[in-house]
Amino acid sequence: MPLAHFFLRERLRSGDVAVDATCGNGQDTLLLARLVGARGRVWGFDVQASAIAATHALLEVHGVSSCVELIHGGHERLAQFVPPGVRAVVFNLGYLPGSETPLTTTPENTIAALGQAAELLARGGFILICVYTGHEGGPEEAEAVEEWCRALSPKLFNAWSSRQLNRPAVAPYLVVVEKV
Amino acid sequence: MPLAHFFLRERLRSGDVAVDATCGNGQDTLLLARLVGARGRVWGFDVQASAIAATHALLEVHGVSSCVELIHGGHERLAQFVPPGVRAVVFNLGYLPGSETPLTTTPENTIAALGQAAELLARGGFILICVYTGHEGGPEEAEAVEEWCRALSPKLFNAWSSRQLNRPAVAPYLVVVEKV
Repeated sequence: MPLAHFFLRERLRSGDVAVDATCGNGQDTLLLARLVGARGRVWGFDVQASAIAATHALLEVHGVSSCVELIHGGHERLAQFVPPGVRAVVFNLGYLPGSETPLTTTPENTIAALGQAAELLARGGFILICVYTGHEGGPEEAEAVEEWCRALSPKLFNAWSSRQLNRPAVAPYLVVVEKV
Repeated sequence: MPLAHFFLRERLRSGDVAVDATCGNGQDTLLLARLVGARGRVWGFDVQASAIAATHALLEVHGVSSCVELIHGGHERLAQFVPPGVRAVVFNLGYLPGSETPLTTTPENTIAALGQAAELLARGGFILICVYTGHEGGPEEAEAVEEWCRALSPKLFNAWSSRQLNRPAVAPYLVVVEKV
């Protein structure tokens, strides 16, 4: 989503550590890898082997696979792999692209992953969450994410949601959580 | 508001043209003047003579008054003074700070000014609107602003609202309109 990419481009720097919690087709992983560069480090997670393979292929084509560690596993296992001091964590909720059977992220795993991501953030680091509500279970997952955000201490985190006003109501929207 | 200032700092450059539609105490005017610099140009509007005087004094103290033209008049007169090609227009709705009698912006004038601002924007330019809902008439003005945004052509404008999730419900929120 353009607003998420705007944020990443403005705030990620060479040498940063970043996480793509939902690789999917690998487009966000590729952007993260380009922005943090060879001196940086990216972790990418996906529950689908096909998504990990597609992401790996995309990174290879663009010559940036060496700074990326891909994990074939759900983002609820983030803290098992990623060390503290993370600058950016990206979540794309909803359908996992390319899955043969309809497969979506779940509120339980997403909330677990968000908690771990918030712990791992460096000061000034941020979580970007692209929220989709147009599929079954989407509104419930969106509400779970917002409830999690509302409970964050305003002394430790800024949390805001950005919705497009001149698009259909089911258009994806962006939640940003920043560690102050 | 911090998010508005983040946007301005990221996207305004030396030599740009910017408008503060509601000078108030002049803090936003000062930021705009600093960002566009001596090669740029800022127009500032306020219906209160005291606000224009306070803004002028603040700009003088910081040595940046020469690039700013202050207009003692409402923002609904924007198009009378400001030429096309504007990079940023900032609105702070709600109470006008420092007024002796409670004085607020009104939906009619605000919507008129927004229409003029949208016309005057350069491509890639943007309008930032800080919306307050905690005062009498605030929710109605907020609704008028969002209704105006919803009617913008998605081919010509991106429009989104950003609300803080872990702050009280009456906290101000930000509406951004970008000309594509």
